[in-house]
Amino acid sequence: MNLAAAGETREPAADDVPVPAVDAVPGAGDVPWRHRHLLDVDMLTAADLELVMRTTDAMREVLDRPIAKVPALRGRNVTILFYEASTRTRVSFEVAAKNLSADVVNIAAGTSSVTKGESLADTIRTVEALGAEMLVLRHPVSGAPYLAAEVFGGSVLNGGDGWHAHPTQALLDLYTMRRRLPGGSVAGRKVVILGDILHSRVARSNIWTLTAAGADLWLCGPSTLLHGFEAWAGRGAAAGRRFHVTASVEEALRDADVVMALRIQRERMASGLLPSLREYAARFGLTRARLDLARPEALVMHPGPMNEGVEIAPDVAVSTQSLITEQVTNGVAVRMALLYLLAGVGDGR
Amino acid sequence: MNLAAAGETREPAADDVPVPAVDAVPGAGDVPWRHRHLLDVDMLTAADLELVMRTTDAMREVLDRPIAKVPALRGRNVTILFYEASTRTRVSFEVAAKNLSADVVNIAAGTSSVTKGESLADTIRTVEALGAEMLVLRHPVSGAPYLAAEVFGGSVLNGGDGWHAHPTQALLDLYTMRRRLPGGSVAGRKVVILGDILHSRVARSNIWTLTAAGADLWLCGPSTLLHGFEAWAGRGAAAGRRFHVTASVEEALRDADVVMALRIQRERMASGLLPSLREYAARFGLTRARLDLARPEALVMHPGPMNEGVEIAPDVAVSTQSLITEQVTNGVAVRMALLYLLAGVGDGR
Amino acid sequence: MNLAAAGETREPAADDVPVPAVDAVPGAGDVPWRHRHLLDVDMLTAADLELVMRTTDAMREVLDRPIAKVPALRGRNVTILFYEASTRTRVSFEVAAKNLSADVVNIAAGTSSVTKGESLADTIRTVEALGAEMLVLRHPVSGAPYLAAEVFGGSVLNGGDGWHAHPTQALLDLYTMRRRLPGGSVAGRKVVILGDILHSRVARSNIWTLTAAGADLWLCGPSTLLHGFEAWAGRGAAAGRRFHVTASVEEALRDADVVMALRIQRERMASGLLPSLREYAARFGLTRARLDLARPEALVMHPGPMNEGVEIAPDVAVSTQSLITEQVTNGVAVRMALLYLLAGVGDGR
Repeated sequence: MNLAAAGETREPAADDVPVPAVDAVPGAGDVPWRHRHLLDVDMLTAADLELVMRTTDAMREVLDRPIAKVPALRGRNVTILFYEASTRTRVSFEVAAKNLSADVVNIAAGTSSVTKGESLADTIRTVEALGAEMLVLRHPVSGAPYLAAEVFGGSVLNGGDGWHAHPTQALLDLYTMRRRLPGGSVAGRKVVILGDILHSRVARSNIWTLTAAGADLWLCGPSTLLHGFEAWAGRGAAAGRRFHVTASVEEALRDADVVMALRIQRERMASGLLPSLREYAARFGLTRARLDLARPEALVMHPGPMNEGVEIAPDVAVSTQSLITEQVTNGVAVRMALLYLLAGVGDGR
Repeated sequence: MNLAAAGETREPAADDVPVPAVDAVPGAGDVPWRHRHLLDVDMLTAADLELVMRTTDAMREVLDRPIAKVPALRGRNVTILFYEASTRTRVSFEVAAKNLSADVVNIAAGTSSVTKGESLADTIRTVEALGAEMLVLRHPVSGAPYLAAEVFGGSVLNGGDGWHAHPTQALLDLYTMRRRLPGGSVAGRKVVILGDILHSRVARSNIWTLTAAGADLWLCGPSTLLHGFEAWAGRGAAAGRRFHVTASVEEALRDADVVMALRIQRERMASGLLPSLREYAARFGLTRARLDLARPEALVMHPGPMNEGVEIAPDVAVSTQSLITEQVTNGVAVRMALLYLLAGVGDGR
Repeated sequence: MNLAAAGETREPAADDVPVPAVDAVPGAGDVPWRHRHLLDVDMLTAADLELVMRTTDAMREVLDRPIAKVPALRGRNVTILFYEASTRTRVSFEVAAKNLSADVVNIAAGTSSVTKGESLADTIRTVEALGAEMLVLRHPVSGAPYLAAEVFGGSVLNGGDGWHAHPTQALLDLYTMRRRLPGGSVAGRKVVILGDILHSRVARSNIWTLTAAGADLWLCGPSTLLHGFEAWAGRGAAAGRRFHVTASVEEALRDADVVMALRIQRERMASGLLPSLREYAARFGLTRARLDLARPEALVMHPGPMNEGVEIAPDVAVSTQSLITEQVTNGVAVRMALLYLLAGVGDGR
């Protein structure tokens, strides 16, 4: 991700881009989408982001129908190849693809023979030869989707790679904020990401989209987990982005419009980078008292799954300010939108 | 389960309830079903039981068609969330839902990230936000489906919870007996459940439906595995139910109309509650010689999977008296019926 | 497999058998297919082989359509029951069945409760009672599909059993060679299978079809892994088949038309039957230098997954001579053809 390169990116006016007619087969209409793959959010221009948001609006409307299904991808093969355990992201893509009437093939590579010494490139070639037209890939190695995109003839969607990127998460987070913030825009809003920034692909992808969309972004967590981000923030600021880093929860949360708590990975404890769960909860947990530092109607978000009582208090998680389950539903809609847009491009190959 | 509270339940005449036209979307007709969830059989009145049986008749007729499929739940999302390994119950629900043209999402929580410290309530909220309209839940903790029903906005079907309940198993067992017993009723019939009663949710749910339907129910097994059931039987008898407990296989099997052998869980052996497999087979296994104590045409049942040579002898399992594979097919039909009936209620939300 | 019994088998002329109209429901036309099960290739006559090849041609044409889907098996239940981990074969059958509009049920028996002490026969009966009409079985015990076929009322397709057979692999290999060899026939062509012949069900099934189709077949590998095949080759030669065994890579590869490298199972190393991976690669790996011994346009094949750098060099695997990914696509087509042909027979039961 090269923040400086996108310094001029600005959120366009909300009515620049028409809502697509998603009941039709993609590609039939006049869709100005140009990307065959979704590898990270840094490949998306402001106009691209806007088109994703608009298409997601249309998909949300589909989700509200009695039968949440359109024939757009009927008979298309969407293969979900996950090298890491995941329920919500995997199911979200699966439901999104089925809502578009695609045929879905699930491959859990961790428990399958995919791992029997075959190279990733060979696996990708095999999956394509088996019929995959769109490939959703989650992989523990940062950059794996880029390799896949070089080999695969269809469209690759990054479902999370190492610490690097989780673009559909960032897009659903942006969509959720825009849908709930007064004015429908994150521009000028104080948005806090709280937690283990260092190991978080969710944070990395959100940094891109949120600063591109003009948010006043604050990263907060134990200082051991912020290494390198100060320098990044400095370069971002030089490029016209608002991007702050602090270990002070109070400074971060004061007058915040949005607070996103990240999941604490218990397996990181062993590394010594994180304090104990109890200490983490005491110093950085998103409690009601801390949330009261933010604006009265501040939005609460979390990518899930939550460790309630650690990074987020149970009463905060289910409060009326919490958008956590709405994030999940928007995740299905944004993935429908992306499958739809990418399929329109892939059609032409 | 409160046996006494249902003391007056009696099996209605077989032609009280019309067979539903299950090819249509549920809710369109005049279905007097009132339950949004199926958590245990003790929530079902005699009229409910009769409606389930009649709807299952209609679904059996669907299963006999060249293409065993009706459009009743087209486009509806049925999510199967299992926290315990299971093949037959999971596949039975999956096939039932697909036969109704639903979209099925399978989540094996034991091997998935669902278990990464997230609370059950959060998982249920997430699954609903992902699109689940009907949720089939198997969980090792007794009562988990009741918690799920409080959180979930659609319909919850209990696919087995701890030692507590397995309502679809009890309903398929009742259906199988009624279909095969002369006269089409279990009223007054001697029905024996043989095995590890103490740890069996199958037994607990069957006790309810069978005594409600007027059967003369006998529980038989090692006395260490019958603790507490004598007192329960006494209360049941006081409420007008016929319910006996004995450690004598001879007393139980003599003149029985139906003998249901339960699976011995090998993992219980370690607890010391059960004798060795060899000793169990010698003292309680359902052999041809023991079955000869029952009526000549007595029905043999087993919920599966069987340990042949332990709780049931191989020749008994495949004899003409055995209904074991018919139970499996009826299980698909009864689950189709329940999904259909619950969907009709859920529609109105 | 009894090689001698098929001594007279000859490849028929390519236009003997018409291409089926696979968009229709099977059985409607005049299909002279007689088999309910596919257990091994040795049950197939030359006319059967030809019909499989012709039907696969039709299915390849379906795969080339924008929507690779025909309604032939709409609403039919294809259950894939795998007792060994597998991705490519499992997914290949799944995609094949879905392309024919069948409903697919996946059961990974290694991780499921299928293995909780239940006998294979009971499992097969249960799977049938759950609705399976066609059963794809992979099992570590040679001969398991034959037992399944005795119990199962529908059609059994062997997806690989122990070291014994892998008939769909042999058929896709034959199809791939015929499609690519000048003249469209393997008759008289020198075909080499290189690797661990002893433990390979792929080799065993290929020996049958290739010699039946008139190829000049050479088996090559470490002599410890060729035991018994010399005698078999002798009997085959006596029955009019061309079938050679050698530990000399040079002798095998010289002027070869087709070279198929087999996967080295790393777990065999411990047995002492195989040298180290490094030594194996040095002595038997299919390198560019060795391939240059073959004819200039010799075809390179591998059943996958590959250990690149061990049994096959990376540059050979991706060279223009390599048909390895085409094998995968043809595998989907040949499995569509077999499901289609078997369903036509199963219809009549």
